[in-house]
Amino acid sequence: MKILGIDPGIGRCGFGLIETTTRANAKALDFGVITTTENGELPNRLLELYESLHEVFDSTKPDVISVEKLFFSKNITTGIMVAEARGIVLLVAEQYHLKVYEYTPNEIKKTLTGYGAAGKPQMEEMVRLHLGLEQKPKPDDAADALAAAITHSLMNFEK
Amino acid sequence: MKILGIDPGIGRCGFGLIETTTRANAKALDFGVITTTENGELPNRLLELYESLHEVFDSTKPDVISVEKLFFSKNITTGIMVAEARGIVLLVAEQYHLKVYEYTPNEIKKTLTGYGAAGKPQMEEMVRLHLGLEQKPKPDDAADALAAAITHSLMNFEK
Repeated sequence: MKILGIDPGIGRCGFGLIETTTRANAKALDFGVITTTENGELPNRLLELYESLHEVFDSTKPDVISVEKLFFSKNITTGIMVAEARGIVLLVAEQYHLKVYEYTPNEIKKTLTGYGAAGKPQMEEMVRLHLGLEQKPKPDDAADALAAAITHSLMNFEK
Repeated sequence: MKILGIDPGIGRCGFGLIETTTRANAKALDFGVITTTENGELPNRLLELYESLHEVFDSTKPDVISVEKLFFSKNITTGIMVAEARGIVLLVAEQYHLKVYEYTPNEIKKTLTGYGAAGKPQMEEMVRLHLGLEQKPKPDDAADALAAAITHSLMNFEK
């Protein structure tokens, strides 16, 4: 199964495609970050995101989508923009008739490390190990997207 | 100038098209509410909204869009969903190459009534008067969208 993890954002939207092999491992087929024009107008950035997501969906051909569920914590303005970007992600997934699974940051951390409050280095190391990579996947947004994809893989195998 | 006001929401998204005549008055050409499948899956509702917005933009042919700016107050879950819907509204506006103006609820109330904390009945009455309607426009979401459109009209005439 090819799982496309997405870490929504307007300035930087991470994506990571994995192919599940065994329960304990998966292969990273592709990962990266969609960026939009810095200081651009919001509607234009959303259209850039929309069109880039179409390109990613076309090239990666996933079977299912795994997205981080949104929680607001520190910055409400950032949170609103992430939600606006998330709306575009969900829209495009539906346009491709793909089922979207959502996981909270806590679920993702707990599934990968066994600990819901795991730190970033620990998370990145688990992503690296699970995918059998020599180095941690970069940049961070791509690693977060891969973590969402791995979470879906692990939680499905566990069922 | 034809101004399309939009009051974003996933379950109910109000829209109202006005044509400005004089500074003090405008004509309501069309208004209503886009609804999506109650209890439907979020990605599917966003796609329904996206497609309905295309229909509204096609039929109303606005020159400019006026949208209420989002502020979170009471319910964060509702706020996230409104932001997701707003992302779709801004995306579609950009697809039609239309400039989007955003006004805070406070700006809209103040522009229409002179009072930033005006109540709903007072707002509805000002919308009715400005548009020369016999009755208050219904439902509420459509009236809110018309209020956003009128605000843009008034604020531009004042410049």
